Amino acid sequence: MTKDKNSNAEKADILIKNGTVITMGGSGDGKVIEKGAVAVTNDSISFVGGIDGVKSIEAKTVIDASGCVVMPGLINGHTHAAMSLFRGIADDLPLETWLNDFIFPAESQNLDDEFVYWGTKLAAAEMLLGGTTTFCDMYLFEDSVARAAKEMKMRGVLGEVLYDFPSPNYGEISQGFEYTENFIKKWRNDPLITPTIQPHALDTCAPELLVRAGEISENHGVLFIVHVAESQANVTHVREKYNKTSFQHLNDLGVLSERFVADHAVWVTDEEMDIMAEKGVKVITNPESNMKLASGWAPVHKYLERGIVVGLGTDGCASNNDLNLFGELDTLAKLHKIYDEDPTHMDAHTAVGLATVGSAEALGLSDVVGTLETCKRADIIVVDFNKPHLTPVYDPFSHLVYAAMASDVRDVLVNGEILVRGGRLTQADTEEIMAKAGELSGRVKKSLKRS
Amino acid sequence: MTKDKNSNAEKADILIKNGTVITMGGSGDGKVIEKGAVAVTNDSISFVGGIDGVKSIEAKTVIDASGCVVMPGLINGHTHAAMSLFRGIADDLPLETWLNDFIFPAESQNLDDEFVYWGTKLAAAEMLLGGTTTFCDMYLFEDSVARAAKEMKMRGVLGEVLYDFPSPNYGEISQGFEYTENFIKKWRNDPLITPTIQPHALDTCAPELLVRAGEISENHGVLFIVHVAESQANVTHVREKYNKTSFQHLNDLGVLSERFVADHAVWVTDEEMDIMAEKGVKVITNPESNMKLASGWAPVHKYLERGIVVGLGTDGCASNNDLNLFGELDTLAKLHKIYDEDPTHMDAHTAVGLATVGSAEALGLSDVVGTLETCKRADIIVVDFNKPHLTPVYDPFSHLVYAAMASDVRDVLVNGEILVRGGRLTQADTEEIMAKAGELSGRVKKSLKRS
Repeated sequence: MTKDKNSNAEKADILIKNGTVITMGGSGDGKVIEKGAVAVTNDSISFVGGIDGVKSIEAKTVIDASGCVVMPGLINGHTHAAMSLFRGIADDLPLETWLNDFIFPAESQNLDDEFVYWGTKLAAAEMLLGGTTTFCDMYLFEDSVARAAKEMKMRGVLGEVLYDFPSPNYGEISQGFEYTENFIKKWRNDPLITPTIQPHALDTCAPELLVRAGEISENHGVLFIVHVAESQANVTHVREKYNKTSFQHLNDLGVLSERFVADHAVWVTDEEMDIMAEKGVKVITNPESNMKLASGWAPVHKYLERGIVVGLGTDGCASNNDLNLFGELDTLAKLHKIYDEDPTHMDAHTAVGLATVGSAEALGLSDVVGTLETCKRADIIVVDFNKPHLTPVYDPFSHLVYAAMASDVRDVLVNGEILVRGGRLTQADTEEIMAKAGELSGRVKKSLKRS
Repeated sequence: MTKDKNSNAEKADILIKNGTVITMGGSGDGKVIEKGAVAVTNDSISFVGGIDGVKSIEAKTVIDASGCVVMPGLINGHTHAAMSLFRGIADDLPLETWLNDFIFPAESQNLDDEFVYWGTKLAAAEMLLGGTTTFCDMYLFEDSVARAAKEMKMRGVLGEVLYDFPSPNYGEISQGFEYTENFIKKWRNDPLITPTIQPHALDTCAPELLVRAGEISENHGVLFIVHVAESQANVTHVREKYNKTSFQHLNDLGVLSERFVADHAVWVTDEEMDIMAEKGVKVITNPESNMKLASGWAPVHKYLERGIVVGLGTDGCASNNDLNLFGELDTLAKLHKIYDEDPTHMDAHTAVGLATVGSAEALGLSDVVGTLETCKRADIIVVDFNKPHLTPVYDPFSHLVYAAMASDVRDVLVNGEILVRGGRLTQADTEEIMAKAGELSGRVKKSLKRS
């Protein structure tokens, strides 16, 4: 904050006050401030504390958060954003039918820069309106994802998907590495976009691909993100081809490090968890997608016991079918209780932690976002508890996990800019995005009829 | 509809048009009418069909449902509505701690007619706003539940909970039977309220209680609703005390019939399912509550295979923690896929069926509600799909289960009256209800500090 020359007032751009502030941080003010306030100056948080501390702050914009919870923006640790355009295209099918008869034909006949750009915009609209301020994306035409994210002013951790077979975007894998390195160079200093390298999975990527990706990750200091052990079929493939478990295989290839993020990590042995813990591997869990595809469930409780960092993701809209982290929080907490046969597992505090500090740490952003602390970027959401389904309030964490909906998010800031106010996007044309999505879905429907 | 004397127009009270109409009925118009219309005259549906069929209908109120789904109101097959006032009071605890240190003390020190009346109003507000038009309630001070439901103009299937120990409401069980019979006589001809008899569970109700309840159910022709086999502890209790399974025990007591509704029915053997099918027993499944309390999961797929009618419920707000049937639908579908290890199980159509026709049949209301068909009562909801998270649309059933939120419900009619319009209650004072809930929760907090 800057001091006003003519008075004792300190100046801020935005002041959010009167809400229950959940910092999720370890700062002196503790985690929950009953009558709290957060001030924002430029792109960062300049004050977090009790309402008494802001008497001398003058802000251009004041947001009254009475009856609301003010907290860090949620972080979607894994998605394929542009698949929003395939939402509901095929459900309740065996995995192979789903992939071969619907997803692959729909993708191969429709994907291009325009499709991915609008699909990402649609996804960003949904995510922002639902309180998600950062997303980690693996898809094709990733430069268009970055462009859409930038225009939507959303934070993105992005990487082009790489695999052995030719890509509709870059063609052969050698060009895929070139595309990725150019992508990294282009976006590495962007305030919102973090480039990464994202090989698809162990059954679609040969050892040489994974090793080369590991070198690029190391050379550029970027995250290495990959689907690991999502289904039993994945694990069986690795076992049959390499006679190893997934993480043994990855470890032997020398690609595991603190920059390594495993999406899903459902079918993992205790020995593999030891390797993961030792190497500092991070996990993004996607419970709703794993349930819907009947893939299984990730042993998150065991990961946390071993100190393995776990974040939360939604996966893409073809397998969930939304990008709603509030719904995901509810499912996450309940799934682990029933599976572990222990109602104390995955309590509400822990669950919220996964979607904020957990995802931030997994994505290498813990110095930037994930908590409300001074000097972190101002990625903040205001959740309106003035609703029958959030009344009365005994414990705000309980409501965030077990009762709140994405639609209860009232205001959203990313990097200090107000992107949602009163439940509406302030800087994007929602009607235009939905109209364009309708148009593109018409194209998808036609392509499926042909195939 | 009535014919206008001076023209060829037919008169209706309300006409909902231009939406995608999902009838859930077996009538000639099929289940999904793309550009459809529904007309309401007095308390009933007077027309369902394509938009072309309504050219000659003149209605006092016309609701444009463009881009929306028009469907039967959802039916919450099992809840303890007034526990809305205990929402989030205690989560993530072992069952015994939860019950003995929080729920029982909170109930014993706070429950009275006023508390239950306002708690039910709060619950009704949440349910109506989320597209639930009928609820089945088991609680104490049930006459106040009926009074609140009537005032909120919501449909209710209601019964005072009965058990061996003295009740804060009626005292000894003999007075409980008297209270119940009076309750049945008072409400039996009400257009909105259906009285029932609801013993609590097999470990809290002696055989004599259950037998007497069975007699009352038979004499008055009312439903006999009871928690059965919710947890392993319940089943163990029955096994140890009677050396029988739950449904063997109930069958031997002679209380099973087509009027018998089993809430939960999680831990049930194949032999018990045969008894259930033979006797025409109905089931209400409550997946989110069963998950949150780590109770287990009901074998719904097996029930449906045997032709056992299954409806959907939320259970009370102390164990869920909301009354959101859209969230419940999503969890229902995903839970059964992962548990049965089959992504084709509990498809979106089947899931929506449980929350509409399934619950209606289980609650003996299939002649009255559950589908959109002429002559049924007009319990209708309009779900607004004009949102990023419901765009594009390939299959409306998919969106209802996997992407829609309770907050997407725009308009709600019960018994021909518009109770929600544009996402707001039209006939109840939401602010007053929430203020009263806040007041009563203050009382609860104090009582817990004392105990």
